Amino acid sequence: MRHRLKFTVAYDGGAFAGWQSQLHRKTVQDEIERAFHKISGARVRVHGAGRTDTDVHALAQVAHVDLLDRKIAAARWPIALNAVLPNTVRVLNCQYVSEKFHARYSAKGKTYRYRIFTGPILPPLEFERAWHVAAPIDVDLLKRAAEIFVGRHDFKAFAANRGTKPESTVRTIRSVRVRKSRELITIEVTGDGFLYKMVRLMVGAIVRVTQGKMELKEIASALQSARAEHSRFVAPAEGLYLVKVWY
Amino acid sequence: MRHRLKFTVAYDGGAFAGWQSQLHRKTVQDEIERAFHKISGARVRVHGAGRTDTDVHALAQVAHVDLLDRKIAAARWPIALNAVLPNTVRVLNCQYVSEKFHARYSAKGKTYRYRIFTGPILPPLEFERAWHVAAPIDVDLLKRAAEIFVGRHDFKAFAANRGTKPESTVRTIRSVRVRKSRELITIEVTGDGFLYKMVRLMVGAIVRVTQGKMELKEIASALQSARAEHSRFVAPAEGLYLVKVWY
Repeated sequence: MRHRLKFTVAYDGGAFAGWQSQLHRKTVQDEIERAFHKISGARVRVHGAGRTDTDVHALAQVAHVDLLDRKIAAARWPIALNAVLPNTVRVLNCQYVSEKFHARYSAKGKTYRYRIFTGPILPPLEFERAWHVAAPIDVDLLKRAAEIFVGRHDFKAFAANRGTKPESTVRTIRSVRVRKSRELITIEVTGDGFLYKMVRLMVGAIVRVTQGKMELKEIASALQSARAEHSRFVAPAEGLYLVKVWY
Repeated sequence: MRHRLKFTVAYDGGAFAGWQSQLHRKTVQDEIERAFHKISGARVRVHGAGRTDTDVHALAQVAHVDLLDRKIAAARWPIALNAVLPNTVRVLNCQYVSEKFHARYSAKGKTYRYRIFTGPILPPLEFERAWHVAAPIDVDLLKRAAEIFVGRHDFKAFAANRGTKPESTVRTIRSVRVRKSRELITIEVTGDGFLYKMVRLMVGAIVRVTQGKMELKEIASALQSARAEHSRFVAPAEGLYLVKVWY
């Protein structure tokens, strides 16, 4: 019998070559698998709700593992794991769940946050934590551009090729919230699912609109045509945060 | 004739062995002196408003240098300096000032911020940016303890020995503001001057009061007696931020 443990984990994306296990590179998945091995002596496979790229941060990624027993209580697991994990990864919460739960396949949606610093000089404490666009951004225009994404669309034009073919590129964006606090702009996107680099391509497009490098109507037509354009701009990874996985 | 350039600089304390120049260790002052040398070819001495210890951050430290000429306009200096400085130090602003101005001796006061994260698990993005006190803090009691410091007192009991004898240990604290946002407590202290490790000793004392390890009245008596106690607690450096120097 397998004992499925669901857990929530936060990490500093700048410290890892992304979520997914890789040979010869430090990844979050590898660190967590190593931590489980150190504690239980067993080799486990960590299943995340989704991958995040190098430099992408997570405030609450969700994952699960299958354990051979329940010797360690759910409430003890974060303490045990954090004792052996680096400070750049923290397990926030663990609970035993039914085998029907799957971190990836049970996910109903996700919320991502994207941070843009628009002042002329990037403060050292924002280094690797925001995209530096060293010019003021028209937030009203940014909001109008962002709202075009809300709803059910074919996001093929806002997906990077991962090598594998996704069955469908249709996704539903439930909300896009844009806030401004002094020189910092925060964009929060909630949707039922996200294609590879989708949030960064969306952010890249709406910022280009505010820079006069792309027209507002081009976003709508890209969604309608569902064709990847050559002029696409991927906003840098360090501004992106996985905020929540919805079940 | 000397041309005095005043500048404001921000840095990530975790990347340096403090502000002050040291042999064989990477310090902020050394980095800035090296940057001026690279640009102008001249060896300059950077005079800061005050030193900060290893791991102490600065949002707006102030310093000055004396240059041989004004070939480079004030507005160009931040661009030139930031081009050669590491991303962990950013010069925010430069202006030529009279020789009467001295970054340290002209300073009328400073504002420091201290951040405490009180949740059970320190988020990776707060690592090296806040003091982790893994238990809830009674903010009202913290405020009451903090307010005792406001006014003109002999802070000898809240000063660490730096080897050099300060002329006087009397300082005036103009305000102490305590705010709470979820699990994060921020303490902002403004005063006419600060002794070595003074803010960290003040924060250490008021947090100990909330933990029942020290009585409220002991703060007042420490200020009155002006005697360093043996049980003093220095709050860790990584929670401290130099926010502003007043002239």
